[in-house]
Amino acid sequence: MFYLIGLGLFDEKDITIRGLEIVKNATRVYLESYTSILMVDKERLEAFYGREVILADRDMVETASDEILSHASTSDVALLVVGDPFGATTHHDILLRARALNIPTDVVHNASIMNAIGACGLQLYSFGQAVSIPFWTDTWKPDSWLGRIQENVGLGLHTLVLLDIKVKEQSEEDLARGRKIFQPPRYMTPASTLSPTHTLALALSRVGTPTQSIRAGTLAQLATLPEDAFGPPLHSLVIVGSRVHPMEIEFTSKWAIDGDWLRVARDVYAVEIESE
Amino acid sequence: MFYLIGLGLFDEKDITIRGLEIVKNATRVYLESYTSILMVDKERLEAFYGREVILADRDMVETASDEILSHASTSDVALLVVGDPFGATTHHDILLRARALNIPTDVVHNASIMNAIGACGLQLYSFGQAVSIPFWTDTWKPDSWLGRIQENVGLGLHTLVLLDIKVKEQSEEDLARGRKIFQPPRYMTPASTLSPTHTLALALSRVGTPTQSIRAGTLAQLATLPEDAFGPPLHSLVIVGSRVHPMEIEFTSKWAIDGDWLRVARDVYAVEIESE
Repeated sequence: MFYLIGLGLFDEKDITIRGLEIVKNATRVYLESYTSILMVDKERLEAFYGREVILADRDMVETASDEILSHASTSDVALLVVGDPFGATTHHDILLRARALNIPTDVVHNASIMNAIGACGLQLYSFGQAVSIPFWTDTWKPDSWLGRIQENVGLGLHTLVLLDIKVKEQSEEDLARGRKIFQPPRYMTPASTLSPTHTLALALSRVGTPTQSIRAGTLAQLATLPEDAFGPPLHSLVIVGSRVHPMEIEFTSKWAIDGDWLRVARDVYAVEIESE
Repeated sequence: MFYLIGLGLFDEKDITIRGLEIVKNATRVYLESYTSILMVDKERLEAFYGREVILADRDMVETASDEILSHASTSDVALLVVGDPFGATTHHDILLRARALNIPTDVVHNASIMNAIGACGLQLYSFGQAVSIPFWTDTWKPDSWLGRIQENVGLGLHTLVLLDIKVKEQSEEDLARGRKIFQPPRYMTPASTLSPTHTLALALSRVGTPTQSIRAGTLAQLATLPEDAFGPPLHSLVIVGSRVHPMEIEFTSKWAIDGDWLRVARDVYAVEIESE
């Protein structure tokens, strides 16, 4: 049996009882190390599980998946994944390969940013498609995500914006520089529907962990926060849609940088603010 | 401290280690019994936790939340919720009340249908807003969800369609009758963008549990399946958007009722099918 097991958002204690039982009994346990940043290191997981964990980097999961799966035809093999197993295309791919090899599979779900984002106080039902912004290079500056944000904005829906994480391709310092994505989109195609001073947004760091941090403000305000205001990764951004509900504004006002949050909600988003 | 703890999708073993530790140490543990259907009963949870669990129905969480919270000001109180705590508005509401009472809060995330739906093989990034279809009564026939599906269809995005669950207001038999929602929308405002024979959809039951069942077909095909083809709740539906990727079609073809899945994907959705 080949098991895909989600580890959740933070540390070794976010695995489920079901997942932990499989890990303890499996013949081999791989830990995927690239689709997201691990909040804990392999050694800490090994100490908690009481067993060896094999680090599987991008090359391994994508090109050596047949090797991983070959063990699964005769014994139980688990691949541990940060968040939920279906956050990344790679995991559908390895399940397809298992299917082709007639290897039975099972999945243990867990929290991921795709549902834990509800912690910010905006309703999950009011989110449109999520977008992922890749790091730009000198020669590769994709901006298709901007059109997708605009589609959501056009419908009045919120947008979860994820930073593409490429652990092996980015140094720690480069990841930190990746926070430039929180700047207003002046370096990219200017979008009139995303006015820096008239668009509310939330900057979220380490959602679902004890050091979770949320800042709420206009895009312009978030862009002027110093880089060290956010702390270590992972980071994401939510762009608030016009269909925002008064209770969502009330809940998120806890994270507001200043009174602009309520002012823009009232004047631009036309939200009826009760407590004023 | 007031803890909101997600229980995940199936049984007592889907709680996380972090959640279980809090449950074992809390002074009081409430189990919310209405925002979703419990897959296990209270007694089984109590046996697994080795402690008493207090059932909290809708009246209690909504009207007696101050009573629940009053204990949290002097000791640790946990409210257990099926799925992730932020699937329902009620939980933002009780957190707001805790905030007003200056009671510290913490949230333990878990899997919910909002991210576990990735198990069907469609990419989470290609889903638009999720919609919830309430049970119709003789006098209340809301159809605002139809417009939201059409918005997603217009953008080529998938739609997760959830059935509104009202445990205390519906008999088991009524819940079963709720499956009429899987019929083509001929009882509601006909939507030309949702042609029964040209729209691909997935009918999902008990996602994330050992008896998970998925059927893939056109809306017309799914509507002609006998009601007992789906088994016990929970049920949801995914309407496939035109932006569907060939790998998504390949993955989901595992659940296809017949060859119509690939035929409609190729002829109507213009997906380039490799394996033909």
